[in-house]
Amino acid sequence: MNIHDPNIAPLQVTTGSLPASRKVYSVPEAAPDLKVPLREIVLHDTSGEPPLPVYDTTGPYTDPNVTIDVEQGLARTRADWVKERGGIEEYQGRPLRPIDNGNVTGKHLARAFPNTPKPKRALDGKPVTQLEWARAGVITKEMIYVAVRENLGRKQQLERAEAALAEGESFGAAVPAFITPEFVRSEVARGRAIIPANINHAELEPMIIGRNFLTKINANIGNSAVTSSVEEEVEKMVWAIRWGADTVMDLSTGRNIHNTREWIIRNAPVPIGTVPIYQALEKVNGDPVKLDWEVYKDTLIEQCEQGVDYFTVHAGVRLGYIHLTANRVTGIVSRGGSIMAKWCLSRHKESFLYERFDEICDIMRKYDVSFSLGDGLRPGSIADANDEAQFAELKTQGELTKIAWAHGCQVMNEGPGHVPLHKIKVNVEKQLEWCGEAPFYTLGPLTTDIAPGYDHITSAIGAAMIGWFGTAMLCYVTPKEHLGLPNRDDVKEGVIAYKIAAHAADLAKGHPAAQLRDDALSRARFDFRWEDQFNLGLDPDTAREFHDETLPKEAHKVAHFCSMCGPKFCSMKITQDVRDYAATLTDNAKAALYPEDAASGLSPHPEEGARAPVSKDEAEEGMRRMSEKFRAMGEQVYVDADAVKESNKAL
Amino acid sequence: MNIHDPNIAPLQVTTGSLPASRKVYSVPEAAPDLKVPLREIVLHDTSGEPPLPVYDTTGPYTDPNVTIDVEQGLARTRADWVKERGGIEEYQGRPLRPIDNGNVTGKHLARAFPNTPKPKRALDGKPVTQLEWARAGVITKEMIYVAVRENLGRKQQLERAEAALAEGESFGAAVPAFITPEFVRSEVARGRAIIPANINHAELEPMIIGRNFLTKINANIGNSAVTSSVEEEVEKMVWAIRWGADTVMDLSTGRNIHNTREWIIRNAPVPIGTVPIYQALEKVNGDPVKLDWEVYKDTLIEQCEQGVDYFTVHAGVRLGYIHLTANRVTGIVSRGGSIMAKWCLSRHKESFLYERFDEICDIMRKYDVSFSLGDGLRPGSIADANDEAQFAELKTQGELTKIAWAHGCQVMNEGPGHVPLHKIKVNVEKQLEWCGEAPFYTLGPLTTDIAPGYDHITSAIGAAMIGWFGTAMLCYVTPKEHLGLPNRDDVKEGVIAYKIAAHAADLAKGHPAAQLRDDALSRARFDFRWEDQFNLGLDPDTAREFHDETLPKEAHKVAHFCSMCGPKFCSMKITQDVRDYAATLTDNAKAALYPEDAASGLSPHPEEGARAPVSKDEAEEGMRRMSEKFRAMGEQVYVDADAVKESNKAL
Repeated sequence: MNIHDPNIAPLQVTTGSLPASRKVYSVPEAAPDLKVPLREIVLHDTSGEPPLPVYDTTGPYTDPNVTIDVEQGLARTRADWVKERGGIEEYQGRPLRPIDNGNVTGKHLARAFPNTPKPKRALDGKPVTQLEWARAGVITKEMIYVAVRENLGRKQQLERAEAALAEGESFGAAVPAFITPEFVRSEVARGRAIIPANINHAELEPMIIGRNFLTKINANIGNSAVTSSVEEEVEKMVWAIRWGADTVMDLSTGRNIHNTREWIIRNAPVPIGTVPIYQALEKVNGDPVKLDWEVYKDTLIEQCEQGVDYFTVHAGVRLGYIHLTANRVTGIVSRGGSIMAKWCLSRHKESFLYERFDEICDIMRKYDVSFSLGDGLRPGSIADANDEAQFAELKTQGELTKIAWAHGCQVMNEGPGHVPLHKIKVNVEKQLEWCGEAPFYTLGPLTTDIAPGYDHITSAIGAAMIGWFGTAMLCYVTPKEHLGLPNRDDVKEGVIAYKIAAHAADLAKGHPAAQLRDDALSRARFDFRWEDQFNLGLDPDTAREFHDETLPKEAHKVAHFCSMCGPKFCSMKITQDVRDYAATLTDNAKAALYPEDAASGLSPHPEEGARAPVSKDEAEEGMRRMSEKFRAMGEQVYVDADAVKESNKAL
Repeated sequence: MNIHDPNIAPLQVTTGSLPASRKVYSVPEAAPDLKVPLREIVLHDTSGEPPLPVYDTTGPYTDPNVTIDVEQGLARTRADWVKERGGIEEYQGRPLRPIDNGNVTGKHLARAFPNTPKPKRALDGKPVTQLEWARAGVITKEMIYVAVRENLGRKQQLERAEAALAEGESFGAAVPAFITPEFVRSEVARGRAIIPANINHAELEPMIIGRNFLTKINANIGNSAVTSSVEEEVEKMVWAIRWGADTVMDLSTGRNIHNTREWIIRNAPVPIGTVPIYQALEKVNGDPVKLDWEVYKDTLIEQCEQGVDYFTVHAGVRLGYIHLTANRVTGIVSRGGSIMAKWCLSRHKESFLYERFDEICDIMRKYDVSFSLGDGLRPGSIADANDEAQFAELKTQGELTKIAWAHGCQVMNEGPGHVPLHKIKVNVEKQLEWCGEAPFYTLGPLTTDIAPGYDHITSAIGAAMIGWFGTAMLCYVTPKEHLGLPNRDDVKEGVIAYKIAAHAADLAKGHPAAQLRDDALSRARFDFRWEDQFNLGLDPDTAREFHDETLPKEAHKVAHFCSMCGPKFCSMKITQDVRDYAATLTDNAKAALYPEDAASGLSPHPEEGARAPVSKDEAEEGMRRMSEKFRAMGEQVYVDADAVKESNKAL
């Protein structure tokens, strides 16, 4: 649909399975009405391996049994879960006002979503947030859902899980071998994880953010005064989750903010985050000086009712910190931070976000909107990393975290930014300490400033490291960072780069399920199962396309060679020989393989890796026998593509 | 030129300056006949900043005063330096044989380079390698050259250099504030750095590899039996150095290996590396079993005479280690490693590279070809990282390093591969210890296996970290890794990703000159000097193209806004206000900016960042005064694009 004209065909978004993938649903014993999605990647018959389960962020868009109708929005399954817990009321929400869409009219006004539900909120004194339920000892359906979702194939592999954990380095994180709903509850109760889940976002498939769970990534989308449309933004959201975004932030700043957001939320299976001050600013014609509590409060309620799951609130940008940025190379680069700085300076008053923080908590609690405490003074360059302004605000984030917790609100903390490698770790350490282990949510960080056009890479480096150190969610950066708004292609580039960073972090932490995918892909690579190698990757389409640039024929997909070495010689093939050969060795023969080091006498550490000494005769005899065996085994090195094709046909 | 047909137009390669860049040459006092290249990036007049000097790998191709003629090759300037040191002889080299080009004939045979110089070698008993000269206390012209080349703008900024070093974390590296030729000599003498510089590669602009110098990167090129031509490979080399490759390895494996290499070397201002066993294997029709010392030796001499600067020699793949790879997920993935494994297994003999290592040293020494001791048993998957096979070989690399040093040869050590984040650091620690601090040269490492198509990113993460820990040169990985041979675009992607990794490492080590570029670019960003931001980046073309996708007009290049926020509101503009404002503050006023924390009383660390207490009256008076000042300063937030344009015209 062209949202501006109801007579035109419906809005299209990308649907359909990923290659060789099927959607399966787990039904938890504890809640048989839940269907927890999982993607299974089906491998080639010759692999002898079962399908590989992977975490699935794609929502119903990849379920062939679901008919997608963007005009209707996704099924509002979660409405029942919220209702059966009780303590909420449905009510006549705040009326939509022209100012919510920037006062645009006529053909410039994006059509409203046709099917907006009535909002709900907590009744006075009743628990509503996941944090409140968790503290009360109640395991919600959301908690059961995320427990199942996080486990993947772990139940069957507890031994392996323990081994992975033992081998990893998690810097004090306490990832369990198996995630139970009770573990989820306890993590939420102590504020170490959040389940961003506005009660009005009934389309949500719940997920959890915390350092004892899989590292998550966020993708930013949103239009601006200069570019893009509602249609593009909805597709960007669907596209971002297709490639693995765990949450999506709508950072729209132009016209039609309300209507754009409504279309996104009603069609979003992932949590949606926003920065309410952006819309509040639009309501006062873009002049920060004119902002006040009333317009901000009005915006909070508007967005709470729509179902936004987390709000970035820059309440840590206090008047007293602003001058600390004066000598920076890049001053204040956060949009929210600079809005608040301008406001504070112009009135010479303490930030109203800071002063009204209790009231903000009261509003957000009623809908279970989580805080993402903004880092408005984050460094915008290597030169400004870890400075006084940044850490002053972080300390205030810690103070505000505890206030929000006291109000029953879920909280995470935003972090930098631009930070060189050697200054990354201390950011996590301080955040953990000052913010009571609330989940950390960082933008990159970018590890150098010198590569505009490649900041998905400069920042994926920092993101992998900070994720390893304990950051719970990584906010992606696209190749367009500093240069323009990301288009659909940029969104994918950013998401893939950050899936890499998050996965590298999980591997290093020793996450029990992470390496299963690496191993499956590496086995496929070693076996020349090209299709499996593509399909197990983060982006099967690109992998296939690259391979086919040089070897496009279907026959090459089963060939035991690749374009690096060609059909004549292949290192992988030789290793197969080694494996067959080693299988024939006895322990004595293995010992014989270690010839004496007499030739050089220079081995610097003879004690390590040393083997039982073997006499020269024994060694020679062993060698002779082995040589015979190897020759008997064939020892051919040529692999002919056509012969392989034939042998595959014969199978 | 189409190399196959002398009647067709000459071979074209990319020439011309990078945007806003000019080539300048430093003339060292110690050797006034040397011209050491440097690229200066010229900034916009409004910046008030001098041009920024950056390290220049591009060779004469970016010098508008040099006429490039690929048929002639580059000027053989270095021939005189070698000659004046004496102790060498020119001789009738080994004749070119059909087998050197895979016995191809007719139209399949690439034309020989028309202008091949006669080879030179050391006279018996005479010193020839940079290591030998260094030990003898002689500072060669190559050493003077690299000292000047490494310093960039450091001489003028010694104070800043000391501060940068103090702030960095270099894990025991000893980067000096200023590089002298004597420092270069001492580092080469102790084997901690190498200057790969075959006396027959007279076209070379010398460079140094060692952890107390700028982190370097290598780009692999080369044709295979399946793809690509000589023309493509020469352009790939020129293209790789244009974007920053410090050395280039020619890994050709197909036909025309000799002629391809000749064209590359004669036109290469950077060191060229090869893996001689690849060509030796071609000479025995691709059958490792038929390899022997004679064919390998013949190949070594052939390549020494051509001017290859470093050889990968997989002499650490010993018979006794091969079965250690049998239970790996991906066995032996190094091509050289698997060739030698096959050879050892089929004959059941110790590797002839290991047994003939002294003879190999003698040959390579005569031409000053540096060793790059291969890691034939490097892990090819996360599962295989840091296993017994890998470290057994590394220990042998250490043993061989000391033998090569004893022969007067320069040495570096190759390293992995695929390694998860938490297993990277120990690789550097073991290499430093076992290999006596010889320069480490790693391939990535890739930090996950699950992203075919994006391995420039999976590996740039590992490369940045291992560079920081002390790796001297990072071998790039392109997006085509595991999928096909890189084309020209892939080469650029790989080089840029690795320039990012190397630079991030230098920043973290506290390299004295590294942050100058980040700061210059960030200042340009903050000042909305769009052109400067593009030009200071690693890839000005892509940055400009991305920016212009949304804001193509020339007027936007001087606009004080970007497509993220549009002209109406801009966070950078607000920070300017903050800066102006802070400049007006007295110390008393600054103190007044810290309102008491009475509101919450929750600040978790009141002792840190605390300011001198101010009475309520003082604070209110201070705030009132500041508010007046700020209003008097204008406080406008709107920035109109046309007005900016007008004011720029008026300047």
